[in-house]
Amino acid sequence: MIAILKPGVTDKQRENLCDWFRSMGLEVHVSQGQFHCIIGLIGDTSKVDISLLESLSIVESVKRISEPFKNANRKFHAQDSVIDVGGGLRIGGGHFEVIAGPCSVESEEQMVGVGRRILAAGGRLLRGGAFKPRTSPYDFQGLHGEGLGILSRAKAMTGQPIVTEIMNINDLPLFEDVDVIQVGARNMQNFDLLKELGRTRKPVLIKRGLANTLKELLMSAEYVMAGGNENVILCERGIRTFETYTRNTLDLSAIPVLHELTHLPVIADPSHGTGKASLVLPMALAAVAAGADGLMIEVHPDPEHALSDGAQSLTPDQFDDLMARVSKVREAVLS
Amino acid sequence: MIAILKPGVTDKQRENLCDWFRSMGLEVHVSQGQFHCIIGLIGDTSKVDISLLESLSIVESVKRISEPFKNANRKFHAQDSVIDVGGGLRIGGGHFEVIAGPCSVESEEQMVGVGRRILAAGGRLLRGGAFKPRTSPYDFQGLHGEGLGILSRAKAMTGQPIVTEIMNINDLPLFEDVDVIQVGARNMQNFDLLKELGRTRKPVLIKRGLANTLKELLMSAEYVMAGGNENVILCERGIRTFETYTRNTLDLSAIPVLHELTHLPVIADPSHGTGKASLVLPMALAAVAAGADGLMIEVHPDPEHALSDGAQSLTPDQFDDLMARVSKVREAVLS
Amino acid sequence: MIAILKPGVTDKQRENLCDWFRSMGLEVHVSQGQFHCIIGLIGDTSKVDISLLESLSIVESVKRISEPFKNANRKFHAQDSVIDVGGGLRIGGGHFEVIAGPCSVESEEQMVGVGRRILAAGGRLLRGGAFKPRTSPYDFQGLHGEGLGILSRAKAMTGQPIVTEIMNINDLPLFEDVDVIQVGARNMQNFDLLKELGRTRKPVLIKRGLANTLKELLMSAEYVMAGGNENVILCERGIRTFETYTRNTLDLSAIPVLHELTHLPVIADPSHGTGKASLVLPMALAAVAAGADGLMIEVHPDPEHALSDGAQSLTPDQFDDLMARVSKVREAVLS
Amino acid sequence: MIAILKPGVTDKQRENLCDWFRSMGLEVHVSQGQFHCIIGLIGDTSKVDISLLESLSIVESVKRISEPFKNANRKFHAQDSVIDVGGGLRIGGGHFEVIAGPCSVESEEQMVGVGRRILAAGGRLLRGGAFKPRTSPYDFQGLHGEGLGILSRAKAMTGQPIVTEIMNINDLPLFEDVDVIQVGARNMQNFDLLKELGRTRKPVLIKRGLANTLKELLMSAEYVMAGGNENVILCERGIRTFETYTRNTLDLSAIPVLHELTHLPVIADPSHGTGKASLVLPMALAAVAAGADGLMIEVHPDPEHALSDGAQSLTPDQFDDLMARVSKVREAVLS
Repeated sequence: MIAILKPGVTDKQRENLCDWFRSMGLEVHVSQGQFHCIIGLIGDTSKVDISLLESLSIVESVKRISEPFKNANRKFHAQDSVIDVGGGLRIGGGHFEVIAGPCSVESEEQMVGVGRRILAAGGRLLRGGAFKPRTSPYDFQGLHGEGLGILSRAKAMTGQPIVTEIMNINDLPLFEDVDVIQVGARNMQNFDLLKELGRTRKPVLIKRGLANTLKELLMSAEYVMAGGNENVILCERGIRTFETYTRNTLDLSAIPVLHELTHLPVIADPSHGTGKASLVLPMALAAVAAGADGLMIEVHPDPEHALSDGAQSLTPDQFDDLMARVSKVREAVLS
Repeated sequence: MIAILKPGVTDKQRENLCDWFRSMGLEVHVSQGQFHCIIGLIGDTSKVDISLLESLSIVESVKRISEPFKNANRKFHAQDSVIDVGGGLRIGGGHFEVIAGPCSVESEEQMVGVGRRILAAGGRLLRGGAFKPRTSPYDFQGLHGEGLGILSRAKAMTGQPIVTEIMNINDLPLFEDVDVIQVGARNMQNFDLLKELGRTRKPVLIKRGLANTLKELLMSAEYVMAGGNENVILCERGIRTFETYTRNTLDLSAIPVLHELTHLPVIADPSHGTGKASLVLPMALAAVAAGADGLMIEVHPDPEHALSDGAQSLTPDQFDDLMARVSKVREAVLS
Repeated sequence: MIAILKPGVTDKQRENLCDWFRSMGLEVHVSQGQFHCIIGLIGDTSKVDISLLESLSIVESVKRISEPFKNANRKFHAQDSVIDVGGGLRIGGGHFEVIAGPCSVESEEQMVGVGRRILAAGGRLLRGGAFKPRTSPYDFQGLHGEGLGILSRAKAMTGQPIVTEIMNINDLPLFEDVDVIQVGARNMQNFDLLKELGRTRKPVLIKRGLANTLKELLMSAEYVMAGGNENVILCERGIRTFETYTRNTLDLSAIPVLHELTHLPVIADPSHGTGKASLVLPMALAAVAAGADGLMIEVHPDPEHALSDGAQSLTPDQFDDLMARVSKVREAVLS
Repeated sequence: MIAILKPGVTDKQRENLCDWFRSMGLEVHVSQGQFHCIIGLIGDTSKVDISLLESLSIVESVKRISEPFKNANRKFHAQDSVIDVGGGLRIGGGHFEVIAGPCSVESEEQMVGVGRRILAAGGRLLRGGAFKPRTSPYDFQGLHGEGLGILSRAKAMTGQPIVTEIMNINDLPLFEDVDVIQVGARNMQNFDLLKELGRTRKPVLIKRGLANTLKELLMSAEYVMAGGNENVILCERGIRTFETYTRNTLDLSAIPVLHELTHLPVIADPSHGTGKASLVLPMALAAVAAGADGLMIEVHPDPEHALSDGAQSLTPDQFDDLMARVSKVREAVLS
């Protein structure tokens, strides 16, 4: 960490500050320039409150040099992480998978039917929501435990590992048979939930929050990893901007940026990212071209009667077409 | 709800759509214009998925007429709600209170000392965080149960009702002696937490999320109220924008807008809203001038040694000055 | 246009409003529902101030049905526009071109040298800035007329049509030999400039403003087209969001959205859109996969010594690689 | 300027970089820490492209210490600037004025009538738009020269100095009789216009752009001041965020922040900042409480028939009330 002092700071003021740093166990290097004095700090600077330091009247500005994420950082772990997501499937480090299914689990018939269609098209993981975060308390909230039971039976019948969202740590015991536990965008900074998931060894798929930076997404991954669970997958699903035509703004630059900063796999969700079925195909292809390690796609046998998010769901036929095109773009990118 | 059909829709298509609406128990009124057909829907339209409807190929656009929040809506409850916050104090409907204290509870000595200074200046509610949501898992996370115990003892000694944040519904039993339970910005859409708080009768102070609209804030209030707990206070604390000079952008128009839309009291937090101690006073005065029913202010006896958010904390002396000026502006606004 | 009145509006109030609409030459259709009265307006509603109408005390809400852009609207012009950009080249309707070159024109040697490298790689249009919009008055502002002269000579030597930015309508006479005139993001709503360009017949490339919606971009195209110049190309170059890791957030969903709304060609600029050379390749491929009709790429023979925007420029070797990969992805998308 | 090198940089790489800095005439100070090498640069670092430097493979990060604005900077000019705005009136340094009038100039009768009402209430400067920036080419664009003539005659009759917007530098000769020239939000980075205004000595009122940071606003002021015109007034008028209930988000923290960074006066425009007449009063009071040096308020004798922005205009009676309340809050803030 570097602290730059304002011009005109007295020796006494500077020494008081340096003593304060030393009291935190830091090594202090002072370099006096023509106008500014620069203080370099070495040691565990994670105890230093950067905004407090910046607010001191004698400090011009402060810069943290080392990233506050350690486990997720590519600097300390150059090789891509490969996450085992069940059923012998892997994501990351060249392994690409598509997770698909309806927004909400509605019935066993629905899940098995759509799961088979998805599998036939090449979608090897099945998703469906049993616990649904809804803006309104009056909207459908999911089938909860019953929904998880349906997912389990669908998995038994189609062989697809299942991916579903957790909203409450108390529900964790119900997730025994779930292969990948999803943390939704609204819970990306539900730190108690993340800590608890760090105590499991299940793969955790963390969706970027609507107003969260990529570095904050990495810090949320760090919460899980700090607990000992290294099986984290990151997911870009759109951020909130001033544009209202799309539901969110899918920030595809997140994919190459995260690949630079971390070794964790990165997937994209063009269904939530755009909110419109007609935009899912072009944005899915774009995500693949940008280097995504996987996709998450909403598919519903009958979008017009879906209990939630029907507007952004593909039909199984549209999904067939998407998968064929995804393969071609992926080949072109890899060749 | 109004659905406007595209030009060229056939009678059969229109009738199919109307039948679908009727199957949801809605009354359907068709009005055929020169170019567009307009369908008016009367009844419980909360079951209609507006984005699904918008995505149908024959639909031009859809407009919800009635707001999806009922309990919080001023239309159905014209009078300001007045919330009893303990110790004989009330917020809303002309009752104005200032909640102040350090970001984190650090020790009993700290809380009692700062509480007395705050009370002397006119700050009649005491705040302090025992559970701290921190971006990094390596930052100080709060004293948890021990912190709540300290708050209780401070309350016993100064007589101030206490306000503190909950992050996890499992901690609720520990909040017995807390007067106002705060839901932080990151948990504004932690719907399970909101539902659980709806089962209590404690006042709940909900902070606006960093990327949440005012209507979403009202829907979160609605989660608590739908459970039967009408004691909700709303708090503007800054939203995330492209501006980086301030920590957040304090959206003071939230105060008069919320006063138009809801009968619930609205307070402002200029400490988190700006992130800089030097901006707290002018923005506190501005919030009062805009009609706030209260303020939440960070005060720390020794901001330079605060364990979190020291940069935005006022000293007790600065708080004395702020309270004196707040009184004057409040008188000017009311006169 | 549809105006929905509030419950409880009297007959007299409704009739006054209807008379006001009729005084604007509009046909008025009243449809009285159980709670709300809906007024449909037919005719030239472009004279109606929608926000004024919304603010009337008896009006619940207003909805414009027809888009306010006519010339750019795909509804009235289903076929893709194909723009002749000089040198026998075309953009749009299946014609794809890459525009490349340095951010600023520095010397003839630079432009001819880099132009030849670009052409050899398949970049058939050459760009370079002679007038540079810079945030600081102390930064390099471009070579102005001298820069345009250099561009002309480079065009004569390499045969590439040239694309360059105009900042001031008084400079228009200097743009005689320019093939495509670029309107930068900061001037997207410089309406006087757009009107003046509407009087020429030169292709105009309009970049989306940092805080402008896609509908506003279309309205700016409409300014040029309303003047009689139908040769407009739209360019997504990133919007401003809270994310600070990238210079802007490249909103690739703009490509399929604009293809839905308008017949005009849409290209993407991943260099300005990301601000980092390492992100240009993945985002260029993503733009192609999303259906872009062209790309705009910064290439500089020696990025480390570029007078502006060196950080986001590719070397000619990197551009060779990009073009080879772009071809593959484009084939994959078209196949 | 401080450049921090990555760990593992060789001596040769470091020396090459230092030589490059020296070739730009900079003094170079190297300070080698345990892990990182820090290079301090002294001299005119405005030539250094900060993003290029950041993109070099051996550079960890770069920090500019001195602000790139010199003339507007409070560090070099501690005393508040006081701007003479005509008619013996001044803004800044304790001088507070309210600028009011209709969005568009419509007729002499309108301007003189509303001007007299405004003056009687204490609004000593008169505004009205003759050149109107409108998103749609089909909307009313202003009366242009005729509008300026009307403003002149109104000024002659009421004695109020006049404030009006310029959109095109070619219109400058028509602004002879205008007292304060306004640069609208969409032209905040129309650098050619700013430069030209720097050659005049008229007061220039610069409105913050919808997506511009406060530092960018100061750089735009710097464009005018670098030309020798020190008469600049800054105006906060709302930024674009995800919130759609208000037209913009009025960022009142801009007022105290700008007062910290610059000696120039700062006013607020709650009419454009909110877009709703009902919000103008509370936000005007809030701006005054936050320390604004003035206000800009839309007043129209008959808002329901205004040619533009009627929705946010106050009636003269509402303005009377606002001025009375503004006085009280201002007294409370100053006392």
